[in-house]
Amino acid sequence: MNKNRLEAFSDGVFAIAITLLILNVKIPQANYVSGQQLYKVLHQAIPKLLTFAFTFLVIGVFWIAHHRIFAFAKVTDSILMWINIVYLMFIALIPYPAALLAENPYLPITIIIYSSTLFVIAVMHLILLEYIIRNNHTRHEILTDEVYRSAQKTALVGPVCYVLAAAGSYIHFYISFFFILSAMVYYIFFAGHAKMSQELVKIGETTKEEEGK
Amino acid sequence: MNKNRLEAFSDGVFAIAITLLILNVKIPQANYVSGQQLYKVLHQAIPKLLTFAFTFLVIGVFWIAHHRIFAFAKVTDSILMWINIVYLMFIALIPYPAALLAENPYLPITIIIYSSTLFVIAVMHLILLEYIIRNNHTRHEILTDEVYRSAQKTALVGPVCYVLAAAGSYIHFYISFFFILSAMVYYIFFAGHAKMSQELVKIGETTKEEEGK
Amino acid sequence: MNKNRLEAFSDGVFAIAITLLILNVKIPQANYVSGQQLYKVLHQAIPKLLTFAFTFLVIGVFWIAHHRIFAFAKVTDSILMWINIVYLMFIALIPYPAALLAENPYLPITIIIYSSTLFVIAVMHLILLEYIIRNNHTRHEILTDEVYRSAQKTALVGPVCYVLAAAGSYIHFYISFFFILSAMVYYIFFAGHAKMSQELVKIGETTKEEEGK
Amino acid sequence: MNKNRLEAFSDGVFAIAITLLILNVKIPQANYVSGQQLYKVLHQAIPKLLTFAFTFLVIGVFWIAHHRIFAFAKVTDSILMWINIVYLMFIALIPYPAALLAENPYLPITIIIYSSTLFVIAVMHLILLEYIIRNNHTRHEILTDEVYRSAQKTALVGPVCYVLAAAGSYIHFYISFFFILSAMVYYIFFAGHAKMSQELVKIGETTKEEEGK
Repeated sequence: MNKNRLEAFSDGVFAIAITLLILNVKIPQANYVSGQQLYKVLHQAIPKLLTFAFTFLVIGVFWIAHHRIFAFAKVTDSILMWINIVYLMFIALIPYPAALLAENPYLPITIIIYSSTLFVIAVMHLILLEYIIRNNHTRHEILTDEVYRSAQKTALVGPVCYVLAAAGSYIHFYISFFFILSAMVYYIFFAGHAKMSQELVKIGETTKEEEGK
Repeated sequence: MNKNRLEAFSDGVFAIAITLLILNVKIPQANYVSGQQLYKVLHQAIPKLLTFAFTFLVIGVFWIAHHRIFAFAKVTDSILMWINIVYLMFIALIPYPAALLAENPYLPITIIIYSSTLFVIAVMHLILLEYIIRNNHTRHEILTDEVYRSAQKTALVGPVCYVLAAAGSYIHFYISFFFILSAMVYYIFFAGHAKMSQELVKIGETTKEEEGK
Repeated sequence: MNKNRLEAFSDGVFAIAITLLILNVKIPQANYVSGQQLYKVLHQAIPKLLTFAFTFLVIGVFWIAHHRIFAFAKVTDSILMWINIVYLMFIALIPYPAALLAENPYLPITIIIYSSTLFVIAVMHLILLEYIIRNNHTRHEILTDEVYRSAQKTALVGPVCYVLAAAGSYIHFYISFFFILSAMVYYIFFAGHAKMSQELVKIGETTKEEEGK
Repeated sequence: MNKNRLEAFSDGVFAIAITLLILNVKIPQANYVSGQQLYKVLHQAIPKLLTFAFTFLVIGVFWIAHHRIFAFAKVTDSILMWINIVYLMFIALIPYPAALLAENPYLPITIIIYSSTLFVIAVMHLILLEYIIRNNHTRHEILTDEVYRSAQKTALVGPVCYVLAAAGSYIHFYISFFFILSAMVYYIFFAGHAKMSQELVKIGETTKEEEGK
């Protein structure tokens, strides 16, 4: 199993999971003759549409994180492949907690389940990264220990935010939302500027040139 | 994240969103023993099938537009990637307004929601194009300003048509339909013959040869 | 738009449409405590499972036909791309007539709709092939007229079989089934041995080597 | 049809089938105002979530097996392509027996149907492997007979385990579960260390280098 193929398969699962999210926004099943009634139906769809948009961006964050992590790997092996399959299982699971949240947005239990799923995925990012870094045959030699430490720090932000989001759900919905949003903002706007990412760009280009030869 | 991968992921989301549209055409759930009753059921499916066909072509137009825009980019960066993820969110959203329209084809509100979704996507085409053109590290140097102006003009046709479609829905269904169809006809039959597209073909081939090396 | 990308997108739509077919085999929604009741439910699922298997093979035949046809094309152009999008619209449509057939297998009307969809797709194969062959910039020069005539003959078998299947539905279910099955057997076991296919293999390898350089 | 494309299409079907599994975990359709009621709903979802996780790993095993088998093939031909399409039909079918099992986890009949589907797929692995090995134009010449025998032995573990799982369902649910899990553990932890796999890595790398040239 070469690395390109593993990534292509992972991208497929990501693309399908992210696009299936819209199926959670249930379509009004009856014909609503009056516009007034349809407005009501649409009003009820708002929490579902917000959950759709929010979860779409969350999966987007994970997709980019997955790419950054695999950019550290020179090759794959059987164990890495299986960690990745378990990882993809949780990515494919996301539409379920997202649907629970969309249907019952104000209950602590749905927010805990949602945050916990994100937490497990974020922990698996750490596991994938650790496995790649600790094995000499999978890691890129040209990367310095400093770069790896930067990557590990970046990967730690997610689990911390998501566990706080789960804990915060007992106090208020908005606390959970704040922590998940914090992780999102961090990964979108700050992670790309870390030393680690700069090095990844180089690796990425090196890998690309090697493949192109 | 290299450009090829971003495009492959985007193509995946496009392919899934476009194929999921058929799920909106609900399958008669009971067994209709008499042919007569089935005819009635099929008759009711006609607006849904028309919406399916129409929306399929609309997504087809967007898919080609997306490719043309990314043909202007030499590389991608973190910001372009995130604009693209938000863009894909609206592509993945399309099956929802399409289902609303299919279920309630004669209400202004469903036509406004449908047209507005298309309008947002068309505006995002402009944003993607502007971002690529305004950044020296993403744009292809060999393209002249004239080519960029041609591309910008082409990308402006969509938003104008879709905002007129949304506004027209208050007067009559057919006005909205006419403007969306106009945009479609323009992009299918005329955009390909603009100076911009001719240049894109050259770029496309150059890029392709470079990758092949 | 280079040819590889058009084919990858088409393959995506084929893969999604073919895998969505299983959603037509509805899952018994209640918990059936007794095995006896479940046997009854499974018994009712048999026509749906047969339609699933049959339609899966039909789409398989179309997928291979699509590849063979595009093997004749050296490059794509805007018109070919749009004929292909309309073609994919009918591929994405297949789960609907398949669901109609699965729910009402003994009614002529469902068989006519199913056969007609196959007929339209088969006619579009002919249109795609004609467009590629008649345009000097899309066709491979090294192919002889004899090869093209062989391809055209092969592509004619489908429309003839499917129109006979639609017509035969008024007499008996099995006549339709026989003609669709005939087309399938022809394309699976005989089309591959025609002179045309032998030449396509050569083209395919040539194209592959060129890309690899 | 070159081998890369066949594999990409197969990967697409695998990725869609594996991600569609989550649709079997039905989302509670009503709004459950009290957390207490939602706990009950979630409690009922547990067998469905376990079936989801279990089936996800089963498809993961099949996906890797499919890759290993096709690593033995130098090229594809028309017959191999059709065996593969029938094989993919059973992969696409998996969500159905998985849904049956999830809804009725304690009935022998659902376990037999589930195990039988896995058995058919495992037998098709053997058929694919045999076809590739027995045809001089499809097999890699550099592989020794010893490697092929190792591959055949590995491919036999699946059918044996799955037929025992089907048979064991009459005695107890856990016997079936034990045999399917045994096959999974074998393929995840042991198959990768067999002589066959070691050779496959070499082939895989050789093939990859050839493509890259």
